[in-house]
Amino acid sequence: MGGLAIIRDGGMLIRDGKIELVGLSDEIEKKSRGAEIVDACGRVVLPGFVDAHTHLVFAGNRLDDFERRARGESYEQISKAAGGIWSTVEKTRAASEHDLLVEAKKRADWFLRCGTTTIEAKSGYGLTLEDELTILRVMRSLNKQSSLEIVPTFLGAHAVPRGMDTDEYIGLMIDQMLPHIAREKLAAFCDVFCERGYFDVEQSRKILTAARKLGLRLRIHADQLSNLGGAKLAAELKAATADHLEKTDEQGIAAMKSAGVQPVLLPGSVYALGSSGYPRAREMIEAGLAVVLATDFNPGSSPTASMPMILSLACTQMKMSPPEAVTAATINAAHSLNRGNKVGSLEPGKLANFSVFDCADYRELAYWFGIPQMHSVYVRGERVTGA
Amino acid sequence: MGGLAIIRDGGMLIRDGKIELVGLSDEIEKKSRGAEIVDACGRVVLPGFVDAHTHLVFAGNRLDDFERRARGESYEQISKAAGGIWSTVEKTRAASEHDLLVEAKKRADWFLRCGTTTIEAKSGYGLTLEDELTILRVMRSLNKQSSLEIVPTFLGAHAVPRGMDTDEYIGLMIDQMLPHIAREKLAAFCDVFCERGYFDVEQSRKILTAARKLGLRLRIHADQLSNLGGAKLAAELKAATADHLEKTDEQGIAAMKSAGVQPVLLPGSVYALGSSGYPRAREMIEAGLAVVLATDFNPGSSPTASMPMILSLACTQMKMSPPEAVTAATINAAHSLNRGNKVGSLEPGKLANFSVFDCADYRELAYWFGIPQMHSVYVRGERVTGA
Repeated sequence: MGGLAIIRDGGMLIRDGKIELVGLSDEIEKKSRGAEIVDACGRVVLPGFVDAHTHLVFAGNRLDDFERRARGESYEQISKAAGGIWSTVEKTRAASEHDLLVEAKKRADWFLRCGTTTIEAKSGYGLTLEDELTILRVMRSLNKQSSLEIVPTFLGAHAVPRGMDTDEYIGLMIDQMLPHIAREKLAAFCDVFCERGYFDVEQSRKILTAARKLGLRLRIHADQLSNLGGAKLAAELKAATADHLEKTDEQGIAAMKSAGVQPVLLPGSVYALGSSGYPRAREMIEAGLAVVLATDFNPGSSPTASMPMILSLACTQMKMSPPEAVTAATINAAHSLNRGNKVGSLEPGKLANFSVFDCADYRELAYWFGIPQMHSVYVRGERVTGA
Repeated sequence: MGGLAIIRDGGMLIRDGKIELVGLSDEIEKKSRGAEIVDACGRVVLPGFVDAHTHLVFAGNRLDDFERRARGESYEQISKAAGGIWSTVEKTRAASEHDLLVEAKKRADWFLRCGTTTIEAKSGYGLTLEDELTILRVMRSLNKQSSLEIVPTFLGAHAVPRGMDTDEYIGLMIDQMLPHIAREKLAAFCDVFCERGYFDVEQSRKILTAARKLGLRLRIHADQLSNLGGAKLAAELKAATADHLEKTDEQGIAAMKSAGVQPVLLPGSVYALGSSGYPRAREMIEAGLAVVLATDFNPGSSPTASMPMILSLACTQMKMSPPEAVTAATINAAHSLNRGNKVGSLEPGKLANFSVFDCADYRELAYWFGIPQMHSVYVRGERVTGA
């Protein structure tokens, strides 16, 4: 993760949406007579960012929670004031599939405008069979209508629906939701919020094991608020990723390493919640883990779709170096989504998904924080957004 | 600071670059037959942000310092590696006036694109008579060429030039720089970096007193790294502002209150330096101080021109409420620059400087952090940037 293969005065030959050649501009030009030339004029060209943890589909926002938190109210006070995840679940259930699609499309444009071309997106604001299916279908529709590539994850186990017993809800997920989702191929991954008051290790294991039997790969919301053992469970189940990890200790890190689990770090939520308890990125990198950075885009704890913002947080708050941060937000993230052979780097044979930034050094993306530097974004060789 | 006067379905009548009427859209329309209508389509319209603390004019960047800091190096290590303020002073001295203007113009566009229409800008990367004058002249030229309004501040006392004794340099500032600057009316304010190893309280008093005699108003970099008594000095000298204040205690707050000094808080530099020692915004607001928020835009410790980013930092890290943050970034900031009668709010008689944001609630600006939401920006009634 410590270095990037940067080509100065570099170029690419693109054909049929794929990268055919990468190298020095002069050499590429010689080998590509007749091709249309797009001059980036010395700007930085990066692989489209791959955002491996988002909650894309929901209705409304949580501005009132945001204001309450700014005014110093606690999570409990906000929950009592009808805020928290439940307000989003209620709004999402009340919204039509069409409305959810319209909102998700606006947000998909945000991701593209920040230079992201592939995202993972989780369900989890429905919490009934019908509502979870609706959310996953919105993702399927959006995948057809937007240039943003969406890898869907079923997160029915985001919270226990009100008025339902946890085990009863787990039964519903295992007996009805998961089989339905697998049959319709609506999700590539299954995720669980493994946390005190949500799903404990035993319950998480049950849900994830059932999902794995149906062919879904696994991700886990692990050790965010307490060191419950989520990272170790991810290792035990050979999950693709363990996400959050703010409270993970050395044993959790060692377990992930031995099982090849990728840690997905989400500094946006630590920041937005006003905490300073960032995950131990340096220890994970030094342990040899293929760390991933993601936005955790969601209305409650991380309302950002900007990977440049996450790079800034990684460098300034978690002491990741710029090359480590970019690696974590591109190729490592792609591998965590089982898409490492298609996206995440600019190499022959991969999709021509890339962003052009209005700067001369890739580190400027994280350095000039909060400033939009996107010049143009390309997906499969076609320009999808930009000046 | 606790509330904003928000008009739903509001409108403005603008004539000759000034606001003539503000009120309900329907009523404004009746009173303005024949006027060209610009429909904001329900978007948020805010006064152009006023950024009361920036270091706009410099050459180059400090990407290497940024990377070293991300890799865990200390300020001392970075200084030894030829980083720190000296690397910027050397690059700035080596640059031509034309080159400095070109760079500053690019940055002025960043401010505008983030919704800022007035900034204060400090000299201080020259540290010789000629180089400081050049920087202030660049500001004067930019003021004519850009739509961004620039209020210039002389900060010769940013550091002591290498190879010079502090008292010798103070003599140079008082005997040569300040009289020259006052004569050419190149600065409206004088500022001093009052800090251990830079200019102590006694030395700062000397410089600022001389500046005041020449008709300049005062600002002070106070109590950033240590509680040296900068806030109290600002009170003693009736300075317009005391800026930074990360280490200011209750006595400093009380002194500012009794003297009517405005605190200028700069959370961008706390963030970018990876610290969590934010200034005591809540105590200052509760003491009745007219708090100001600013970017501290500079290449070393706060490389951002984005006031929405600063609003996010204020709400999430300093527990300022959204109305407090917006007040601090508009009207309070305008008053601190002696421009409260011209800019900082949308009122009849003021300049028609405003921004239109692509959201339905002004709080979204701070909530969706890192995402560019600017739709269009107007200065003196003319659209200067936007979709």
